[in-house]
Amino acid sequence: MNAFLSDLPKSVRIVEVGPRDGLQNQPQKIDTALKSEWIRRLAACGLPEVEATSFVRPDWIPQLADATDVIAALPTDSSTLFSALVPNLRGLHTARDAGVKRIALFTAASETFNKKNTNASIEESLERFRGIFDVLAGQEMFVRGYVSTAFGCPYEGDVAVEKVVEVSRALHELGCQELSISDTIGVAHPRQVTEVVDAVAAVVPREAIALHFHDTRGLALNNVVAGLHVGVTTYDASAGGLGGCPYAPGAAGNLATEDLVYLLDGLGIESGVDLDALAAANLWFESHFEQPFPSRVLATYRSPATGA
Amino acid sequence: MNAFLSDLPKSVRIVEVGPRDGLQNQPQKIDTALKSEWIRRLAACGLPEVEATSFVRPDWIPQLADATDVIAALPTDSSTLFSALVPNLRGLHTARDAGVKRIALFTAASETFNKKNTNASIEESLERFRGIFDVLAGQEMFVRGYVSTAFGCPYEGDVAVEKVVEVSRALHELGCQELSISDTIGVAHPRQVTEVVDAVAAVVPREAIALHFHDTRGLALNNVVAGLHVGVTTYDASAGGLGGCPYAPGAAGNLATEDLVYLLDGLGIESGVDLDALAAANLWFESHFEQPFPSRVLATYRSPATGA
Repeated sequence: MNAFLSDLPKSVRIVEVGPRDGLQNQPQKIDTALKSEWIRRLAACGLPEVEATSFVRPDWIPQLADATDVIAALPTDSSTLFSALVPNLRGLHTARDAGVKRIALFTAASETFNKKNTNASIEESLERFRGIFDVLAGQEMFVRGYVSTAFGCPYEGDVAVEKVVEVSRALHELGCQELSISDTIGVAHPRQVTEVVDAVAAVVPREAIALHFHDTRGLALNNVVAGLHVGVTTYDASAGGLGGCPYAPGAAGNLATEDLVYLLDGLGIESGVDLDALAAANLWFESHFEQPFPSRVLATYRSPATGA
Repeated sequence: MNAFLSDLPKSVRIVEVGPRDGLQNQPQKIDTALKSEWIRRLAACGLPEVEATSFVRPDWIPQLADATDVIAALPTDSSTLFSALVPNLRGLHTARDAGVKRIALFTAASETFNKKNTNASIEESLERFRGIFDVLAGQEMFVRGYVSTAFGCPYEGDVAVEKVVEVSRALHELGCQELSISDTIGVAHPRQVTEVVDAVAAVVPREAIALHFHDTRGLALNNVVAGLHVGVTTYDASAGGLGGCPYAPGAAGNLATEDLVYLLDGLGIESGVDLDALAAANLWFESHFEQPFPSRVLATYRSPATGA
């Protein structure tokens, strides 16, 4: 009778996107040294990958204007892999000069969203990426591709599964080794997750699929379980639940890494992340902010009486 | 491959506990007329049952001191069933005099919690209930029994499944037609839900089991899906996510009814509840409070841009 808890993967890989996806939406600019110390502590919790920053134009996202300094300050003795978002060729060159070995490219399954977010049509984005892959030819660089608004768009509403499949296939054919199918505005639904993943997996290796959820309607962890059931073993999450999207009006925070680890721990799925250490790192970082972070599990660490 | 979304029930019955479980924890006392209008609007959304109040001692929970007036003001032209919590014989008599036809009794699977919450051991609580059932003998009264801290206790930590089974069996043998197996402090985990339900279902008809979750660690909706998979079709929820527990330090809000309905709608499971009407009712009620209600789905109604 418990079919829904059978056939789950034994381990899951978490891609921590807080320093990029979380901080880019913070109203306050974070001191580079503070940010770097946070990233160091996140890595020390056992997170296998941290997307540390974005080489986007500083006037577009001033919160990440210190990308080069953040990369320079990354711990060198960590087994954590560090990556950075790269919007275009100029960003790629700066990132490479800084020593970045893993990059992420960003496009969407919704034309309107992509236009507002990147000032380009989806085809124009793919064309930019073609230029990036030309430069990367023969060089060692891991490339992830984001397919944002894959489950719904704040401007267009429903997004056709075919469009997600088409963009995913294009990114994979260009050379993206991993695709982060993203629910930018937090409308995804468990059944929809299984449908979208199965459709994308028809044109891209299933193990190349990552899922990226926002907890806008409280379904992020249900969507993770849906993803686990269709064989996805890589999940993005943001420490403390920091995030949202500056171009998606009202979008709530990313799935909190603490909440994800709490779910995985309970399901007996290995993530390699030490939840207590993660909570400690994020409570420390939170103490430099005026507002508490949205993670629900983090809140239980804030009031020790509920730890029972 | 999508075993986890197969074999789901076609419909679910929601027991709205906001007016009792939600309001009993509000720091402010709510005007009786306002409360009654809210209950009327909740019923008009299609909720099949609303637990409207509690006949507890007014000096214990002053927020519900108007129980008799609330019952008197209930709509008479509604298909919604209304119930009330009854802590003891005195409460029963007052509730019956007020015209209550459905009552709920409250005990726990944790001795320490029950002692602190009801000032009685579990056995003493069951003894009180025996007195209540003696008075009810031969009369028409639907009786629900709460088994609180069934998934963990703020004082004792882990709670043995055997204890949940034992208390559930005792309540059922006394005459409770429904058992609300409750995660009072929001520590329940999907796998644990299936284990506890299956264990209780070995001694009590499965259709008599209801589940009651708090969203303290963001897993409430995952736990609902777990419950759906083991055949539970009755779920408690609190409008707006109001709630918590005055005797459970730091416990966060109940599972929000809006969040539950959003999940069920997406899964194609009938609840009879009109989500838009429910959100409108709760935004109206919320406007009389200083703090926004915690429901995530309700927040998306607050900022219309995300309704896309």
